[in-house]
Parts: sequence; structure tokens; C-alpha cells
Amino acid sequence: MSGVPKADWIVGVDIGGTNLNVGVIPVGGGPPIAFRTQPTRAQRGAKFVVDRVVKMIKDAIREVMQENGCGLEDFAGVGIGSPGPLDRSTGTVISTPNLGWRNFPLRDLIQNAVGLPATLDNDANAATYGEWWMGAGRDARTLVGVTLGTGIGGGIVFDGELYHGASDAAAEIGHMTIDSTGRKCNCGNYGCLEAYASGPAIAARAIEGLESDTESILLELAGDPENITAELVSEAVVKGDGYATEVINDTAKFLGVGLANLINILNPEVVVVFGGVARAGDHLFVPLRAEVRRRAFRVAEEACRIVPSELGGKAGVIGSVACFKKEMYGAV
Amino acid sequence: MSGVPKADWIVGVDIGGTNLNVGVIPVGGGPPIAFRTQPTRAQRGAKFVVDRVVKMIKDAIREVMQENGCGLEDFAGVGIGSPGPLDRSTGTVISTPNLGWRNFPLRDLIQNAVGLPATLDNDANAATYGEWWMGAGRDARTLVGVTLGTGIGGGIVFDGELYHGASDAAAEIGHMTIDSTGRKCNCGNYGCLEAYASGPAIAARAIEGLESDTESILLELAGDPENITAELVSEAVVKGDGYATEVINDTAKFLGVGLANLINILNPEVVVVFGGVARAGDHLFVPLRAEVRRRAFRVAEEACRIVPSELGGKAGVIGSVACFKKEMYGAV
Repeated sequence: MSGVPKADWIVGVDIGGTNLNVGVIPVGGGPPIAFRTQPTRAQRGAKFVVDRVVKMIKDAIREVMQENGCGLEDFAGVGIGSPGPLDRSTGTVISTPNLGWRNFPLRDLIQNAVGLPATLDNDANAATYGEWWMGAGRDARTLVGVTLGTGIGGGIVFDGELYHGASDAAAEIGHMTIDSTGRKCNCGNYGCLEAYASGPAIAARAIEGLESDTESILLELAGDPENITAELVSEAVVKGDGYATEVINDTAKFLGVGLANLINILNPEVVVVFGGVARAGDHLFVPLRAEVRRRAFRVAEEACRIVPSELGGKAGVIGSVACFKKEMYGAV
Repeated sequence: MSGVPKADWIVGVDIGGTNLNVGVIPVGGGPPIAFRTQPTRAQRGAKFVVDRVVKMIKDAIREVMQENGCGLEDFAGVGIGSPGPLDRSTGTVISTPNLGWRNFPLRDLIQNAVGLPATLDNDANAATYGEWWMGAGRDARTLVGVTLGTGIGGGIVFDGELYHGASDAAAEIGHMTIDSTGRKCNCGNYGCLEAYASGPAIAARAIEGLESDTESILLELAGDPENITAELVSEAVVKGDGYATEVINDTAKFLGVGLANLINILNPEVVVVFGGVARAGDHLFVPLRAEVRRRAFRVAEEACRIVPSELGGKAGVIGSVACFKKEMYGAV
């Protein structure tokens, strides 16, 4: 690493539609300390969210300074992960449907308020880079991350570098078509992976499939069918619920089509799956791997491990720090 | 370029299911000379094909030596492109359904017979690298090639390097699922891009759609419906045939789904389309670009040119030389 400043710490920020996560990581790597989470409350506006993030960053820095007897000069900067599409060179979020931002200079607002240099990257890219740095993809040269949340995002690591593409839009795998005449997606098209395997899509399929005589603990867990979520489906599966198992088996098939496409195109060593639905564990991963085996090229499928995230909710913070290191020092 | 030998020429070999192409290129680049084509006749066995390729290489070398008054020592080696999957490090073709080879040490057989060092890469990779070196992707850092032939193949160039993946299987885009419950593919799965947009798939859709009262010059061109090919469909489109135009419009939609997926995942600067069907020109490319615009992320779609191959039937020979240079000298 050339040009590494004489700092000990880097702040990682993970901005999501639901939660904001902030933590501090030693420059040389290690688990985040002074980690904190707060709800995003995007409906209260961009200024509210940025003020909240800045306060979380300052609180985390103060906590680390107090515990380690150091000062602000011991912090190299702030790595930020945010939903996109975004422009890394200007640090601007181009648009985020979930947060309602357009051409929003997020990086500089945080940089100026905190008084430390900052970098901005896509949230799914960051989470993927986190898993490559300190998680499930530690030993991999080529890694693909798939984030299953309100939407579906992705990240690609080649030879230890995040791949961003020609306009920072690479790895937008949620809108990969898997069924060109299939389910309508929020984006207006038909048959996107996101229309089948995002959290809301899993819940929607679970609700649609319920019949008056369906026996399932899902209804007890949810109270009302409208309260069914992908997390509740995963919980019911783990408890042995037959109906929820069907829903997850279907999810595994749809997701398996998407992962097989990624594996045929990118031939990665590891695919890391993020998100609440991964909590279903082998109930998801066993049929998922079977569908991939059925659809992907054998030499590509055999070269690839499909695993759940190891870093979980901290992947974004850890990965944003990795992005900061890469952008500022040229290496992680 | 470090370690460049004091040679003037490199031989390029493009092995296809239908034709064998051989040509010679100056080390510094330029159009192939002593170019020759012969039918593959794979059904006559592997030894026949290798003997024929070796003779073509020796004839091409002799022609260049005579015209330039040089000797074998002025040739650096032979770059070979072959259908895969294959193992570049051992120079072995793992299996090729079209040629009937299994674990076949193609590189060393040619190397030993010709008496020059040789390299082996996938034919679609080579064609894509050729377009990056001297064709439609000359100025691009990130380029995706899509070869529409008997099957559908692909190649990916990142930052001036071919991307091979973890086991030399990257860019196998023909078996990307675009309709998970759709048309049966030769590979046994359903809804692969190849089942809609390969040459035989286009011909099959054209034949299926014919009714007793369909008016189309396709039937005149083909004589018998069974003789309809993708090339004849393209020819009929260029002549203004309405039915053939419908078939090409459908092809553009299916191919558009596949290209939109590639563009969402890889965010390339250029997608190069190879193959006879590209001869339909704007009849294909206008609806193709429209379908991509409908399905791909705007920032990714706007960053990407979708263009036909410039090198045509010589892309494989030119690209195999580029692969040889990259592998032997570390740069093209």
C-alpha cells in the first residue's frame, strides 16, 4: 500500500432503506468497534438522514477516541455505502427510489460535516467487498455477491478489485430477466429476478398461494396474511412448516436460475448470498445449489461455492472501509 | 511488452464446427495475410482435422516466407481458438459436442507438428479479443462479444484483458436462462438464450411459424421449408419480406433480453454481435437496441454501444494471435 496515511482508524457507513449502520475499523483490518444502528426514516427527508448519519459517525469517533486515547488525526476518513445508481468520481447519488434522493452530493455533505475525507460506493458492492476482505470470500480471487432485500443487488470482485463497469452500474443483477413474459416487476418490465426473489416478492408469493384450507404456522406467526414477510417465511421453514417450505423451494428455483446465469457468465470461485432469507439455511441452500447444478455449465458450477454471508449486518460497514482503502491507498 | 522474441509473424488459427481459418499477422498488428479457409469435416475424426490444420499452417507459413524472404525463425508461434470448454494451462479441449473431442491435447499436437510454440483459447473469447485489438472495440476498456452461430458463445474483455473466470468457463452466455419455463434447449434445460437466438433456433422458429397461406420469399429462397436457415431469413429481411421481418423482430426481442442481462451485470462500453444473422443490419439492430433500452438500467444502457462485428470471419484468426501475444509476452 503506497501513500497510507499515519492513521489508525477508518469509519464505515452503510446507508440502507431501513437502517443506518456505522462502525470503526483499524486500518489493518479487524471487526468493527463502536458499531451502531439506527432506523433510516427516509420519509423525513434527505437532511434528516444525513444529519443522523453525521451524528452517528461523530459519536462513533468520540467513543473510539475515548477508549484509545487518540484524536481526530488518527482517523483516515469515512467510507460510505449507499443505494445507487451513483457516480463515484463526484460522490453523487444519481437516484434512489427507496430514499427518494436525486443527484444528491452525499459524499461531500458527509465529508464536510465530519471534517474527514470520504469515499462513496454502491451498498451491494461494499457488502460484497467486505466478504472478500474479511468474510466468506477471503481466499477468493473472483467473487459475486447477491443481496436479497427490499430489492436485489449485487457486487463483483475480480482479482481482488471491485468491478464497477463503464458507468458504475455493474452488478445490477436484480433486474436480470429470468422469465421474459413473467411476473411484473416494480421497474415496469416483466420477469426480473427481483420480481421473484426479493423480500417483498417472496412474501407476495407466500400470500398469493394461501388457500382457505392451507395449514401453516405462517398465519399464526403473522397474525394477518398481510403481515407475512420473507423473514417469517424463513422462520416457519426452520420450524418445519410444509407450506413455507414450498415457498422457499420455489424461491430457490428462481434464485437458482439467476445464480446459474451469473455463474455461466462470470465463472466465479464464490457466490455469497446476503439477506434475511438466507436464515432459512440449508432449507434454501440445498435446493438452490441443486437448481444451479441443473442449469450451469459443469466446469463452472464445480468451480464455485455458494455460501451465505459470514459478516451479516456488518458486511456493509466493513466493505465501505475496504472501498475507502482501495480508493485512497490503491489496495486493501 | 517484455520478453518479445525477435520474430516478425504470428500464425492465427480459428477452428470451427463448419470451417477452419488460418492466417498470419505481423507481431505489431495488421490484417491477416496468407489467409485460407477449408471445411472442418469433423465427422472424419480428430486426426483428420488436426492434419488439415497443420497443413494449412505450414502452407501459410511457406507463403509468407516466400513473399518476404524470411525463415521459420521469423515466426513467434501459433495462437489457436477452439470451441470449449477447455483448459488453457494444459492446452486441452475438455469437450466439444460439435467436433466430438474429449480431453483432446490440441495445443501440443499442433505445437509439435509445426515446431513452434502455441497457445489455446476459446473461439468466442478469441473473436472478442480480436474486435478489441483491431475491430469494433478498439477504443473500449470493457467489451462483451456475443457469437451467434450453431450455438451462442461469448467473450468478456476487462481493461484490455480477456476475462477467463475460475476455470476458463466465463462468458458461456448461450445457456443464460431468459425464460425459465420456455423452449427446450439442446443442453437439456429450458429457456436458454441459445434455444431462441442461435442460427438453428432462428431457422426453427421461422419454419414453425409458417402457415399454408404465409406469403414469403423465404420459401422461394429455400426451395423447401426444411432448407430455411438464419442466413436465408436475414437475406429475406433485407429484401423486404414481411414474414422474415417478424422472425427477426422476435429474434431481436429474445437477444435483447440476453444483452440487457449482460449490460446490467457487466456495464460494458461495447457489445459486439458476431454471426450471419447480423447481416440483417438495422433490421436486427434497431429493434434489438429498443428491447435493450426497455430492459436495461438507463445508466448502463446509455454507456453501451451495440454494434456488429467489424472483422467478420477473420475475427477468430486475429483474436487468436492477440491471445498468443497476451499469453507469451504479457501484452497485446
